Amino acid sequence: MAHQEKETGGLEWRITMGDGSSKSLVPETGPISRIWMGLKGLMAGLVLKVWKFLNKAWDIGVDDPRKVIHCLKAGMALTVVSLVYFTRPLYEGVGGNAMWAVMTVVVVFENNVGATISKSLNRVIGTTLAGFLAFGVHWVASQSGQKFEPLIIGASVFLLASAATFSRFIPSVKARFDYGALIFILTFSLVAVSGYRVDKLFALAHQRISTIIIGTSLCILVTMFICPIWAGQELHALICRNMDKLAGSLDGCVEEYFDHNGELKDSDKHPDKKLLGYKCVLNSKTPEESMANFARLEPAHGRFSFKHPWQQYLKIGASMRSCAYSIEALNSCIDSENQAPEFIKKHMSNVCLKVSSTSSCVIKELAKTIKTLKKSSSIDFLVEEMRSAVQDLQNEIKSLSNLLSPAELLLPGNKKTEKTTSTIHLLEVLPVVILASFLIDISSRIQDIVKTVEELAKVAEFKAEVDDKAKQNQASSNRIVPSQQNDDQQTMKALERV
Amino acid sequence: MAHQEKETGGLEWRITMGDGSSKSLVPETGPISRIWMGLKGLMAGLVLKVWKFLNKAWDIGVDDPRKVIHCLKAGMALTVVSLVYFTRPLYEGVGGNAMWAVMTVVVVFENNVGATISKSLNRVIGTTLAGFLAFGVHWVASQSGQKFEPLIIGASVFLLASAATFSRFIPSVKARFDYGALIFILTFSLVAVSGYRVDKLFALAHQRISTIIIGTSLCILVTMFICPIWAGQELHALICRNMDKLAGSLDGCVEEYFDHNGELKDSDKHPDKKLLGYKCVLNSKTPEESMANFARLEPAHGRFSFKHPWQQYLKIGASMRSCAYSIEALNSCIDSENQAPEFIKKHMSNVCLKVSSTSSCVIKELAKTIKTLKKSSSIDFLVEEMRSAVQDLQNEIKSLSNLLSPAELLLPGNKKTEKTTSTIHLLEVLPVVILASFLIDISSRIQDIVKTVEELAKVAEFKAEVDDKAKQNQASSNRIVPSQQNDDQQTMKALERV
Repeated sequence: MAHQEKETGGLEWRITMGDGSSKSLVPETGPISRIWMGLKGLMAGLVLKVWKFLNKAWDIGVDDPRKVIHCLKAGMALTVVSLVYFTRPLYEGVGGNAMWAVMTVVVVFENNVGATISKSLNRVIGTTLAGFLAFGVHWVASQSGQKFEPLIIGASVFLLASAATFSRFIPSVKARFDYGALIFILTFSLVAVSGYRVDKLFALAHQRISTIIIGTSLCILVTMFICPIWAGQELHALICRNMDKLAGSLDGCVEEYFDHNGELKDSDKHPDKKLLGYKCVLNSKTPEESMANFARLEPAHGRFSFKHPWQQYLKIGASMRSCAYSIEALNSCIDSENQAPEFIKKHMSNVCLKVSSTSSCVIKELAKTIKTLKKSSSIDFLVEEMRSAVQDLQNEIKSLSNLLSPAELLLPGNKKTEKTTSTIHLLEVLPVVILASFLIDISSRIQDIVKTVEELAKVAEFKAEVDDKAKQNQASSNRIVPSQQNDDQQTMKALERV
Repeated sequence: MAHQEKETGGLEWRITMGDGSSKSLVPETGPISRIWMGLKGLMAGLVLKVWKFLNKAWDIGVDDPRKVIHCLKAGMALTVVSLVYFTRPLYEGVGGNAMWAVMTVVVVFENNVGATISKSLNRVIGTTLAGFLAFGVHWVASQSGQKFEPLIIGASVFLLASAATFSRFIPSVKARFDYGALIFILTFSLVAVSGYRVDKLFALAHQRISTIIIGTSLCILVTMFICPIWAGQELHALICRNMDKLAGSLDGCVEEYFDHNGELKDSDKHPDKKLLGYKCVLNSKTPEESMANFARLEPAHGRFSFKHPWQQYLKIGASMRSCAYSIEALNSCIDSENQAPEFIKKHMSNVCLKVSSTSSCVIKELAKTIKTLKKSSSIDFLVEEMRSAVQDLQNEIKSLSNLLSPAELLLPGNKKTEKTTSTIHLLEVLPVVILASFLIDISSRIQDIVKTVEELAKVAEFKAEVDDKAKQNQASSNRIVPSQQNDDQQTMKALERV
């Protein structure tokens, strides 16, 4: 018996057997309709993929609109250089070799001004050098008779191409002249070998160089004057951003540790993204180096002079990375299964949080110093506050150790004290003590960052902050008694002991 | 009064004054001789610089002769492609556009097979795609009248160039098709714009594609058949090398710590280079990723099939980096000014050294597993040995904690023991305990590496080692009693507790 049934989604024919079970009737599918179904599935998958891809691209664009601007600039530069083709006098001026100008724009146009200048210089110098050398070789070859000509040219191409390829393995060449070496090989081969066939070699070389100069100047003008992105400024911003991330991670890690099962977890106050900000610092060596390399070539821009000490930023970056390694170790404490008992955590939490918050204050102040290019008036005070917090933490560890140490308990007078009730085991204290030792380690690494930033302030001649109001604010929030500040050296010594 | 005096180096005229002081007589130097001196100094400096540069280059060549071979291969490929110029039928076959073949060889020829294939594919696909698209646009433009032609072409160049430039910001595109996108822009602009001037556009495109195919095939043949360098093999070797470096650093750090003022320092048994080997692991993320990307494109070679799971190597690399971060933290223990007293160090040294040596044995065995592509028969045993060493270390920490803990001393029966003589302070023990906790952390991270390597062995279907002799050797050197091996799970649980 067959009956019709309405399912949730669509129409279905169902047959009920004698034993009560039912079987649905699927319409017979021919090979064509099956292929059609397959194609439809494929298309749907493709559309979905494309849609996801576009979505991702959109996010990237929204995240950093300057990338979109860069693309529009690139499109514009290419359209402008195409004008050479559309304008007859220009096209004939370069003897129909307008192609080289287009090529130059495509390969030389980079995201920031420094990179564009670097590639332009590489292209111009590499082409000129190789061009002259190829002329020389060509002249020698043409003097030595038709039989030897190809031999001499072939041998010179082999030797010079090998040598230039090898030079790209040398780190100092690779960092600055990698593209130049490539262009050198390219031009040398083209000119030396073309010379065998092309008669007007000099005209060819002249046209090639003039088109390259048209292309590079256009690129440099466009990158420099239309919404410019400066490598130096980028490096500067990267360092500031990374400092803020370091401070955020440090704060987040310690808070997360002491509120492991507390309120923070529920309200998700410190999402993973903030906690793991330090990982960006771990991986920023390569971009920092390349940007410092490009920044050297940039003219004065914004608040940066031509001689701004970009190399010093690399030192700051290195000291930040060293700090990030310690935060990585600190972070592993949080994930560790081995946690101290709640009461010990509570006991230590205040003093540990103090160290982390003063440390992150120091980092934030350094970030502000770099951001504003002004010597901070409060950094010494903040460092001092961090040191005193570290000192407190060390005292706390000592007091923990007194709870453990039997020495005190064996003194005659102490036997009747009730300290035994709070007796704790080393293994229980260990996780917190290790966390504390990381914090102490991090604070000493932060002092290295302070040193490198101070060096930058000195070399780049940062001006002093002249904000009296800020100073007064600090004085009122000053939690250290003046007399205590005089004990600076003693604190220092105590610090070195632990 | 003037008198002649012989100085150590050369001849000097010296005049003695009335007051006893003397003044040397320097011969008057004219401007020409001064310029000459300056030039000489400049030349000497230049020669010295060039000499240093050449020396460095020589060292690089000696250090890795394959780099020299690569350069010779590049020179050869270029010389061979130049033959197109020297052979009339070939030159005329490509309509005088032999230049493109030379250019292709210069830009496509890379250090390893995978990179060359990747660039070749990018170049061929990018050119073809852009070529067809440009044809389409050109046809549309030519249909719409002379007035609109440059407008349509200009707008399409602007739009497509912007879009392609933007696509290079998308990480998945950047990793694989960065060069392809560049070539796409280049070809599209050239063809679309040239179409405005060149009549035989189809012939031009045909020649360009055929020259590119000549160039890429030549490059692929040369990289693949003359002393090939495979990206896969390089990645494989890099992972093995990094493992050995990790093991060396781990051993070196711990030995250095416990012999801080001992013999090791004098005999310089562990030069810094070995100690700091782990730093290579920290910075190897980028090369690993790019090599894994290239390795996917390579055909089966040596012991690797086409489907070798190169992505798994990235996981191994990541787990090694996580281990290297811990070693970085361990290394900071050595440099720390805050050292435990000598007697505590001595007390702990054996058990710590045991952990580090068993851990580095595990890493070395993993390196061997990967090197030989064979499942290790002894890895389980070595891991077990490492765990038991960790267990010993934990017991040792506990016993230290007993020395500290007052609980034991307050038991009535223990009061008369002489344990008080060996009473130690928590702060004194701390540095060693922190080092120990790092070691325990490292051993757990090594177990992660073991897991990733085992996964690789499973996916890549490594064969079992069938070396019975080796098994016997291990059995005889087996320091764990068989019954203890059955306690595996208990040890595991104990391990998780700390």
